[in-house]
Amino acid sequence: MSIHSEGLSDNQSERVLAALDQFQIETPSWGYADTGTRFGKFYQPAAAINLGDKLSDAGQVHRLTGCCPTVAVHVLWDFPEGSDPAEVVRQAEQSGVTIGAINPNVFQNQQYKLGSFGNPDATARQAALQHCLDSIAIAQQVGSQHISLWFADGTSYPGQDNMRSRKRRFAEGLQQAHDRLSHDQMLLVEYKPFEPAFYQTDIADWGMAYLLAKSAGPQAKVLVDTGHHYLAQNIEQIVAWLLDEQMLGGFHFNDRRYADDDLTLGSIDPYQVFRIFHEIHSYAFDQRGVYPEIAYMVDQSHNLKPKLEAMIQTVMVAQELYAKAALVDHAALVVHQSNGDIVAAERMLQRAFTTDVNDAVVTWRRQHGLPDDPLDALRTSGYVEQAARERSERRDALGIVQATSYA
Amino acid sequence: MSIHSEGLSDNQSERVLAALDQFQIETPSWGYADTGTRFGKFYQPAAAINLGDKLSDAGQVHRLTGCCPTVAVHVLWDFPEGSDPAEVVRQAEQSGVTIGAINPNVFQNQQYKLGSFGNPDATARQAALQHCLDSIAIAQQVGSQHISLWFADGTSYPGQDNMRSRKRRFAEGLQQAHDRLSHDQMLLVEYKPFEPAFYQTDIADWGMAYLLAKSAGPQAKVLVDTGHHYLAQNIEQIVAWLLDEQMLGGFHFNDRRYADDDLTLGSIDPYQVFRIFHEIHSYAFDQRGVYPEIAYMVDQSHNLKPKLEAMIQTVMVAQELYAKAALVDHAALVVHQSNGDIVAAERMLQRAFTTDVNDAVVTWRRQHGLPDDPLDALRTSGYVEQAARERSERRDALGIVQATSYA
Amino acid sequence: MSIHSEGLSDNQSERVLAALDQFQIETPSWGYADTGTRFGKFYQPAAAINLGDKLSDAGQVHRLTGCCPTVAVHVLWDFPEGSDPAEVVRQAEQSGVTIGAINPNVFQNQQYKLGSFGNPDATARQAALQHCLDSIAIAQQVGSQHISLWFADGTSYPGQDNMRSRKRRFAEGLQQAHDRLSHDQMLLVEYKPFEPAFYQTDIADWGMAYLLAKSAGPQAKVLVDTGHHYLAQNIEQIVAWLLDEQMLGGFHFNDRRYADDDLTLGSIDPYQVFRIFHEIHSYAFDQRGVYPEIAYMVDQSHNLKPKLEAMIQTVMVAQELYAKAALVDHAALVVHQSNGDIVAAERMLQRAFTTDVNDAVVTWRRQHGLPDDPLDALRTSGYVEQAARERSERRDALGIVQATSYA
Amino acid sequence: MSIHSEGLSDNQSERVLAALDQFQIETPSWGYADTGTRFGKFYQPAAAINLGDKLSDAGQVHRLTGCCPTVAVHVLWDFPEGSDPAEVVRQAEQSGVTIGAINPNVFQNQQYKLGSFGNPDATARQAALQHCLDSIAIAQQVGSQHISLWFADGTSYPGQDNMRSRKRRFAEGLQQAHDRLSHDQMLLVEYKPFEPAFYQTDIADWGMAYLLAKSAGPQAKVLVDTGHHYLAQNIEQIVAWLLDEQMLGGFHFNDRRYADDDLTLGSIDPYQVFRIFHEIHSYAFDQRGVYPEIAYMVDQSHNLKPKLEAMIQTVMVAQELYAKAALVDHAALVVHQSNGDIVAAERMLQRAFTTDVNDAVVTWRRQHGLPDDPLDALRTSGYVEQAARERSERRDALGIVQATSYA
Repeated sequence: MSIHSEGLSDNQSERVLAALDQFQIETPSWGYADTGTRFGKFYQPAAAINLGDKLSDAGQVHRLTGCCPTVAVHVLWDFPEGSDPAEVVRQAEQSGVTIGAINPNVFQNQQYKLGSFGNPDATARQAALQHCLDSIAIAQQVGSQHISLWFADGTSYPGQDNMRSRKRRFAEGLQQAHDRLSHDQMLLVEYKPFEPAFYQTDIADWGMAYLLAKSAGPQAKVLVDTGHHYLAQNIEQIVAWLLDEQMLGGFHFNDRRYADDDLTLGSIDPYQVFRIFHEIHSYAFDQRGVYPEIAYMVDQSHNLKPKLEAMIQTVMVAQELYAKAALVDHAALVVHQSNGDIVAAERMLQRAFTTDVNDAVVTWRRQHGLPDDPLDALRTSGYVEQAARERSERRDALGIVQATSYA
Repeated sequence: MSIHSEGLSDNQSERVLAALDQFQIETPSWGYADTGTRFGKFYQPAAAINLGDKLSDAGQVHRLTGCCPTVAVHVLWDFPEGSDPAEVVRQAEQSGVTIGAINPNVFQNQQYKLGSFGNPDATARQAALQHCLDSIAIAQQVGSQHISLWFADGTSYPGQDNMRSRKRRFAEGLQQAHDRLSHDQMLLVEYKPFEPAFYQTDIADWGMAYLLAKSAGPQAKVLVDTGHHYLAQNIEQIVAWLLDEQMLGGFHFNDRRYADDDLTLGSIDPYQVFRIFHEIHSYAFDQRGVYPEIAYMVDQSHNLKPKLEAMIQTVMVAQELYAKAALVDHAALVVHQSNGDIVAAERMLQRAFTTDVNDAVVTWRRQHGLPDDPLDALRTSGYVEQAARERSERRDALGIVQATSYA
Repeated sequence: MSIHSEGLSDNQSERVLAALDQFQIETPSWGYADTGTRFGKFYQPAAAINLGDKLSDAGQVHRLTGCCPTVAVHVLWDFPEGSDPAEVVRQAEQSGVTIGAINPNVFQNQQYKLGSFGNPDATARQAALQHCLDSIAIAQQVGSQHISLWFADGTSYPGQDNMRSRKRRFAEGLQQAHDRLSHDQMLLVEYKPFEPAFYQTDIADWGMAYLLAKSAGPQAKVLVDTGHHYLAQNIEQIVAWLLDEQMLGGFHFNDRRYADDDLTLGSIDPYQVFRIFHEIHSYAFDQRGVYPEIAYMVDQSHNLKPKLEAMIQTVMVAQELYAKAALVDHAALVVHQSNGDIVAAERMLQRAFTTDVNDAVVTWRRQHGLPDDPLDALRTSGYVEQAARERSERRDALGIVQATSYA
Repeated sequence: MSIHSEGLSDNQSERVLAALDQFQIETPSWGYADTGTRFGKFYQPAAAINLGDKLSDAGQVHRLTGCCPTVAVHVLWDFPEGSDPAEVVRQAEQSGVTIGAINPNVFQNQQYKLGSFGNPDATARQAALQHCLDSIAIAQQVGSQHISLWFADGTSYPGQDNMRSRKRRFAEGLQQAHDRLSHDQMLLVEYKPFEPAFYQTDIADWGMAYLLAKSAGPQAKVLVDTGHHYLAQNIEQIVAWLLDEQMLGGFHFNDRRYADDDLTLGSIDPYQVFRIFHEIHSYAFDQRGVYPEIAYMVDQSHNLKPKLEAMIQTVMVAQELYAKAALVDHAALVVHQSNGDIVAAERMLQRAFTTDVNDAVVTWRRQHGLPDDPLDALRTSGYVEQAARERSERRDALGIVQATSYA
């Protein structure tokens, strides 16, 4: 169990290259637009104005990183009344990407004040369901496989509503949505323990998401957002259980210190992300190398870092940690585990985590005609400056003011 | 929705009396013995030495409170090698109580260092299973319906063991234990997110307990320990979900500020306990007044308060909060909820919680020939002083020293 | 230590009346306007549009509760460029209230993206300081004693800035602000461990607020916002320490389950609020009945409950809990504490908390010509419906649309 | 800001070597003995029986790592009644180490049930003070500079005691202890928010430790135990503030997922440890390279890993993370921070953290005649097997049984 020397062995480099070959991560359209906290937004001149801009930005990210071929979209924000799905597909194609997960939005309209699928009012529930059915239809039109369902539903005060009734309304709504899926589509059910409902969220943890997905039907799985957990909760264990139950549908990646902070992945606790990836490699090892189908998606919209830098940095960190986790020798690990050799077993994870894989990642990039350092390449590309200029002018022409208010 | 005047209406008093008539709570044998924290124990002269003492103390608690007819026992501590279950039944009878839940102990022996049901070593797993089967047999001999399963299993370091393998070992062990149940017995599967395993506990949350109970068989349900949750987790929501899934088996009651602090129930957050009871009354309302079968059990062994005082205080607080929760008018509440009248709905819970039910509780006690204030009655009874004298002498005779060490 | 019978003794009623006589609580102007979460706002027709509306609403709250004579204002939102402080004073007077704490806002403008007093850029720091000095001047003009300072400053990523440098910039800025105070003014320095800065907030806890207030000067004290603490943190202990150090300046009241949820006071954990008030009564007992000067302020702007209902409910809960805490017999408590009689000591707090003080509170209201139930009185007053009508029309006339966007 | 290539530059290697030359870390005598959780101990045959064993083990750790020349001792456990300090010094010398911090123990004896310095009973307070004065005298006799004060004091139930009175008792006790220090001694005041007191600990956070240390006198500073913080609390910020106030006395290192789990350093969140070290290097950079005097100490006594392996692994991880943190180019970092270039600034920390420093650490070991991999060297040394044999026999001879009980 001796400490490793720096520099990868040939075998290790191959494992990194193989891991990167099969790792793709989806970026979200809303990560390219101005967003903020409830205290306000900090605006960026280069922020995307419309879906075309977002697809262009996502294309730029894919051009530099080579592993982000798809873009998650938000129906309400990206498919305004009367928009043409076929046109969106064309726009995406022009930008070098395709449309990924479709995200309905059933939290923003005033009718959802007391919830969407969980609302005590049947009219609001029906509206939410219809929006989801419309989203499924759009997904079919744009060739999207995943419908990502996050609900802001819940209650903020004890007694506000009956939690069992809300559970049943959710079960009913999800079953109805599931009925409309085509055979290759999948519902991803997300959970979140807190915010914007403050006393209770209707799908608060993975157990609730699991039960609702199970009752919805065979094409529903659980979506794990790394920022949606209690403090000190062991996320990788949840991943392991969902894998074992064949109920892990995908990830929304981001990082946080306290709540759902939307920080870039790995910025606070990179070792945890590594351990999540380790569970996936470990599962695949037990499946003789066959990896599970998992939708890896970024879900961040933090408002301080420049939008494209934040996204590229995130993707680079994800690749790096996925590659490090690929270095663990699972056969040897099992031996240490069986022997109860805690220190040797743990050291295998630590050793993989502290191994510097950058040279191998650069090698992979060169093999694919990508820049050695996508972030540096972005900075020297002029893309952001150009976008800032063009979009500022367009904003002026459209009369859009980048200003916000709290109260 | 006007504020109430002090003093209960006749209808309210009747609801309190009816609620108390159907509310019983089990006390644990280990709550009468000296226990401590890892930093040491603080000893009490009146602490129980053996099972006979514990049953006697439990009998005293039942005599004063009238709602604690059963006693949970720990197999390892209370049924030493060669003890006769029939004799235990007789002892309990003499003390005016009967044996309640049987708690196997598969965490204390050295062989369980790496776990019991989850241990990578089959020998340790087999020993743990055998102890559980023995416990089921003892339960049958003493006429006990509930087998309470809490496992200390887990890992303390990343990589220490394979979490999916541990899950499968647990599923297998629980199925084997379930096979041995007689038709009227029930397995209660407890979860705990933290301690004594520090990185990952094998049954970390209600979702894991639910899945394992489901896979074990129809006579397995989930046991909710109020101290075993993440900070800020909404326990009453979990209770609501388990009720709706008909998977709530029972409670281990205690309170805590931070972790599993074993404080007396309601000492830190009484409103949360009230809300838990509210969910149960609300469920029964929907079932036309039929209450679910739930094993209410105390699980505390804090080491500062005098043992019997702590237990009686806990029982009194539990009765009080259960009675307050019985005051909520569910039919009216549903109307407010349907109308989205958050303030009126919430006020119904707040009003019930702030209603002073002590007079009605005293009425109930008098109806049952119990002292008005069981705690005062304990203090004037001389029971504790007598126990302290007799047990101190016995301890001396047995050569037992009340002393501890940390390192 | 016997349990009490329902209904207050004469002595208890007098204590409640005396406590209510000396308890006043300030409402915030921003609690009357539409606010939301980062996911959107839910609008209310009756929400205030301008400062006049807010003062009118605050006046209505005071008219019904009799204990909210002052209104906290936000300089940026309530004193737009060119507004006349004297006119504001007149408006307040017309509404039956006076101006309370002045809250500068140094987080909303784009220049504060990297902070205000902590910003690495001296220009931004200077702008923030100037705004605070202007706020102090306004305070002097409107006769306000308290300058409430909450800073959104901090960093969201490790390495983003030097934490020691930021600390020193804060010390310098606060000293400069302190220099401008008139002799009867006070700086209140607030802390917050999280949000909107996500990695580190510059004034993260009471210790940091204490050190900065101390270094600013003798007229700076600490402001405790009940929602700004780590999970499981003992807020009443912080209150006790600040009282003992004579550094407690005031409170921002609200409640929360997880973060800074802006829920109405006591909605999640009323016993904690009671314990905070207990510390204050206990301190005054040691000071022979002289109460410390503390600015009690509400800081909530939750977006689900009707604005005025939320505020009145909050004030009623605050009065109730303050009154309950006044029932503790401190002389007797000290005896139990000295004897190490944990159960008897704790029971004194529990007994006071469970005592129903509503009749005494109603007596106090009648003595002051107030309605028995201010919330019911609001609902029957027609005030909200009238405000909704008038403000909706005004909004239409002004072209204000109640709509929001996330991205 | 391009990504680095693997392998250190000459300049980087020199920085690692220089950092390791000035980094020493103290191991604790209690880390070599059997310890456990409240659920029991898992015994190790090689565990130390007495102080001689502990010093021998500490000597072995220092022999293999070259950076652990001192050993922290616990007065109660290591200096039994009648032990001779001069003899202890000789024993340490024979084992190749010297005595480091002296830790009084005022939590284990029965008289401390309600506290030591904070106890309402003056007799208990006096006993605790006397033990501390004795400890200071022992420290003088063995040439120890640091008196580490951790208090288990606090209360477990609301109302149990007066928190302001306890604060004042602590201030008085600490002042009296400070009076007895010789001019080169230092009191280190530790804080802990939770456990074994469960409602309130008397020195709950760094702010309380700071105030008490300040009031004790100039030779009192704050001791930061990495496991003693609220979830999500930013420890490195506390370190930065204490450094800036010149009040950081030392560290107790360990790691945890939830509470004070006593896991080996860096096993759960290595990036946080790195960031703590970064603050120290950053402070020294501002002091023109002069490092502050900080007592780095391990405080772990986890019961699963083999004792010596756990200690050596901890020391190796500490060296590695300290070395990585030494790689940050502070002059360049300041430029990025001044420019508000968040991504470039953060990347500097991430780059240093992901740099593989193992080769440089091995170089340092070879320069000092140490084994390349101290853990491997321990395993092949035969030391543990020899200790297990010898100590098992001695245990038998002494009649010591390695067995535990919970209740």
